[in-house]
Amino acid sequence: MPPTQPETYRKRLQTLLLQAAEAMIVEEGLAALQARRIAKAAACSVGTLYNIFGDLDGLILAVNERTLRDLERVIAVAAQRSATADLGTRLMALAIAYLDFAVVHARRWRAVFEHRLPDDRDVPPSYRRDRQRLLALIEAQLVSSIPDAGTRTDAAYALFASVHGIVVLSLDAKLDPFDAAQCERRIRFVVTHAVAGLE
Amino acid sequence: MPPTQPETYRKRLQTLLLQAAEAMIVEEGLAALQARRIAKAAACSVGTLYNIFGDLDGLILAVNERTLRDLERVIAVAAQRSATADLGTRLMALAIAYLDFAVVHARRWRAVFEHRLPDDRDVPPSYRRDRQRLLALIEAQLVSSIPDAGTRTDAAYALFASVHGIVVLSLDAKLDPFDAAQCERRIRFVVTHAVAGLE
Repeated sequence: MPPTQPETYRKRLQTLLLQAAEAMIVEEGLAALQARRIAKAAACSVGTLYNIFGDLDGLILAVNERTLRDLERVIAVAAQRSATADLGTRLMALAIAYLDFAVVHARRWRAVFEHRLPDDRDVPPSYRRDRQRLLALIEAQLVSSIPDAGTRTDAAYALFASVHGIVVLSLDAKLDPFDAAQCERRIRFVVTHAVAGLE
Repeated sequence: MPPTQPETYRKRLQTLLLQAAEAMIVEEGLAALQARRIAKAAACSVGTLYNIFGDLDGLILAVNERTLRDLERVIAVAAQRSATADLGTRLMALAIAYLDFAVVHARRWRAVFEHRLPDDRDVPPSYRRDRQRLLALIEAQLVSSIPDAGTRTDAAYALFASVHGIVVLSLDAKLDPFDAAQCERRIRFVVTHAVAGLE
């Protein structure tokens, strides 16, 4: 059954609003987002934005889900390309892919971690699944090294969060300008030591 | 020579403004800070605030320096208390002290990492020194394990950033409520593996 006319129209507006919000994040960062400006850029009313996404948070979550899926694709490619290498090489490939994504898509990437929902509101299940899939890519590397599933999940999360912490502080560069080689050395320290302890 | 009257008055206003800004961060978070509200809470004018701290960023930096110094004290105490233990125990003691500080002083701690200066503005030297002293506490643990100073600095930074990443993502708790035991397990994974590779 083909979609009815109003469905198509709604889908098109949804896409336009998503693109407008994403472009605004890319150019100015998450803090600059305003429902009124996004609606104007998508040539619709604020009421329409709320009707489609619930509120501005709903639209931001949708943009961030797109970012997570793009990130997942990049990490998955890195995992595939290094699939036959040893554990250390594979984990470094994933970590460097993460660093590269954060550098290239700095504002979109930052928006994923900067955005906070009101305390009384849950993250939608789709968002949860997107993030779980990303973690699963790291867990998959550890299957033969850590047989216990719970320990493996913790380890994958710890590795992800460690690399994330190094990337976030390096890019924030409160003290020094961003130094990619230094950032990579720090990531390598964590990854190689984790691997040395696992093998 | 005792301070002149205007000096004393200025010092008192500086303290009042700092306390007002800090209280506002504790209660509402960094995003809620406004020069006008802080000046009102300190019973002075916005002009006085600017006169003393340059601008709102200057005041926030001063609050964040206080937070860094409090954090340094807490970490220094943990280092002292565990001084005779093995490397893994010492690093875990520092990491757990960091986690505890982040949990107890959540908004002040977050303000240190959330605050961004305009791109054209440098962090003041005193702030730089505060952060360097904090890193030095970690580096000191690694002296006998990593003789090369440059490698040691990188390792200390990598360890700090890893623990920071784990704490920040655990406290953000986008997917799950904060689970202290889980967070500690993840920190332990990174620390024990780093230590295993160093010994």
